Amino acid sequence: MTHPRNLAIGMFDSGVGGLTVLHQLAKRLPNEKIIYFGDTARVPYGDKSSQEILRYSIDNANYLMSKHKIKVLVNACNTSAAYSKLQLRQLCPMPVVDVIEAGVKSIVKTTKSQRIAVLGTRATIRSGVYENEILKLLPQATVISIACPLFVLLVEEQFIGHKATKLIVEEYLAPLKKQNIDALLLGCTHYPLLRGIIQEELGNGVAIVDSSSSCAEMVADLLSSKDLEAPLSSLPVKHQFFVSDNPERFAVTARNFLDTQTEVHVQIKSPD
Amino acid sequence: MTHPRNLAIGMFDSGVGGLTVLHQLAKRLPNEKIIYFGDTARVPYGDKSSQEILRYSIDNANYLMSKHKIKVLVNACNTSAAYSKLQLRQLCPMPVVDVIEAGVKSIVKTTKSQRIAVLGTRATIRSGVYENEILKLLPQATVISIACPLFVLLVEEQFIGHKATKLIVEEYLAPLKKQNIDALLLGCTHYPLLRGIIQEELGNGVAIVDSSSSCAEMVADLLSSKDLEAPLSSLPVKHQFFVSDNPERFAVTARNFLDTQTEVHVQIKSPD
Repeated sequence: MTHPRNLAIGMFDSGVGGLTVLHQLAKRLPNEKIIYFGDTARVPYGDKSSQEILRYSIDNANYLMSKHKIKVLVNACNTSAAYSKLQLRQLCPMPVVDVIEAGVKSIVKTTKSQRIAVLGTRATIRSGVYENEILKLLPQATVISIACPLFVLLVEEQFIGHKATKLIVEEYLAPLKKQNIDALLLGCTHYPLLRGIIQEELGNGVAIVDSSSSCAEMVADLLSSKDLEAPLSSLPVKHQFFVSDNPERFAVTARNFLDTQTEVHVQIKSPD
Repeated sequence: MTHPRNLAIGMFDSGVGGLTVLHQLAKRLPNEKIIYFGDTARVPYGDKSSQEILRYSIDNANYLMSKHKIKVLVNACNTSAAYSKLQLRQLCPMPVVDVIEAGVKSIVKTTKSQRIAVLGTRATIRSGVYENEILKLLPQATVISIACPLFVLLVEEQFIGHKATKLIVEEYLAPLKKQNIDALLLGCTHYPLLRGIIQEELGNGVAIVDSSSSCAEMVADLLSSKDLEAPLSSLPVKHQFFVSDNPERFAVTARNFLDTQTEVHVQIKSPD
């Protein structure tokens, strides 16, 4: 029987955004093989209802568990994690890590003034999950949450350096003027690609935490503490990419999220 | 037995965009009751694969035919019409009208120089359907097709008058400089809300045709020619709105698309 440490890390996202988590994780743990599933047939989750998001999340976890051999499940989609945390932990026999849990842990360590902002999709912000989880750890904190529904598409459409994106960032961040926040959490895995422009808008007095890097750290800690780290490999690890629709488009967009060495061979997921 | 003229017009779209067709149709034919279905659980269609788009389109038509009594089916989604025209005509016993057929008829009448541009979602443009259909009628025409994937969300997020939207319009329309087009077709039902800003960018020498108004005209002609027009009604007609997810969000966005008199009571569609 294969020792669990030799199994892959299973990771899912609504689409391509979770690749920022994969990118960080692959840098941090180069021996780990990652099986990534992007639910491109149903992307984006950010404007869907909570019931639909929960249903999709359970489908995704079941797909990774039934069709692949995984030792950890990483929910790399903030919107999904906002509505499925408890249910996925009940469903899955292996450890589950998600971007929200990781992001909260990290922002709470980062802030000094306890005046914090969180950016996310409309569904993530509507859930109130970031605010609730932060307040559990820092009951005196002020948390300002802002939905930024255009950011995902601006990233996917490669408008990152465009003047229009700068104006849209200004518009969404306007409520933070004079709020004296000292830390801001990027609560969506697409947003790290806009980090530069967000930092410019906020000035250097605000520390930016991204849930993708935090999640990669958390997975590394978990594997180490449970003795689940993959053995050293002399060959470069090949990750696997599966999607529910349109693999060609995924492969094109994925190139913005990953380094040039990562091979992206995308397959359509097998039917249920 | 109810005479078919007393039945409703069934209309579907991937989401809220088709309401521009409903709006035009309701103005043109105030006695007609429209049953509108927005497939908000699977919106947007614009980046999905052709197989998925066809499957969704058939589902939508089957839903309207099996759960409601309709005399005409209007496919108010350009992306859907690009991939399902023949199949829906085979499937449906009643007449089917779609925005593409209507838009093509109208642009061909409008152009004099036969130098035409078409704007649409990525999937609509990839299908090549507008170009093919225009060339069937005007074999000497030059058709320049441009995918504008950010437009739908800019409209839905109420960024219509924003400076960022102006910059994005400039960016997408840049390939039309020096092309001497005399007519441009808005091949997506969201785009009529950007008509002003697009006209400003193109200048007044270019006539803009929108597939929503064209489609409303075509339905009116069809009902008249087939003796299917609803009888005069002394009471204001109440349209019905169904969605596959998130009725609250639909109701909010719908307000940008309709006049203030139209009552928008949105219901979740009954299960299959």
